[in-house]
Amino acid sequence: MEKGEDAQDAAKRELEEETGYTPKELFYLQWYYPTSRSNQRAYVFVARVDKKGKTKREQSELQRVKIVSKDYLKRKILSGEVKHGATLVAFALALSRGFF
Amino acid sequence: MEKGEDAQDAAKRELEEETGYTPKELFYLQWYYPTSRSNQRAYVFVARVDKKGKTKREQSELQRVKIVSKDYLKRKILSGEVKHGATLVAFALALSRGFF
Repeated sequence: MEKGEDAQDAAKRELEEETGYTPKELFYLQWYYPTSRSNQRAYVFVARVDKKGKTKREQSELQRVKIVSKDYLKRKILSGEVKHGATLVAFALALSRGFF
Repeated sequence: MEKGEDAQDAAKRELEEETGYTPKELFYLQWYYPTSRSNQRAYVFVARVDKKGKTKREQSELQRVKIVSKDYLKRKILSGEVKHGATLVAFALALSRGFF
């Protein structure tokens, strides 16, 4: 998060910057501790998106954004290919709350 | 993991030390990255347990072990009370592979 920004604002901004999508609806699910080695908290949101704008990614952020279906993500998780902790947590939370 | 020990051995040892249970069956699910701030990997297993022995916990490990049902854990995750990333990831992986 940037200074003076709350988690909801940061989620909205990051979504727009990273994917070009503006959230039509943004649901806060919960925060969690990614690792017991630090007190850092991660905040998880589900967004429903509409039209796509332009991405504004920092040059240092080299990840590629790939839009996938919920079924595709489910299959990738089932096969053990998803190694990104935050994605796995977001999946667990979204699933338990009926978003999948 | 301790020196010379693989993830499976470490999981078995930690389960016994922390809970007093010896795994009757131990299934390796996958590894993941808890945080993108480090290259550390976390390894996730599902254990079926049988009889309980004695715990051998280090004095510095002050967490209390509480044995809960799968339904209880599901309810706690649904209500947003589980903040521990590794538990949320283990839940996602176990669920996607049919252990829940």
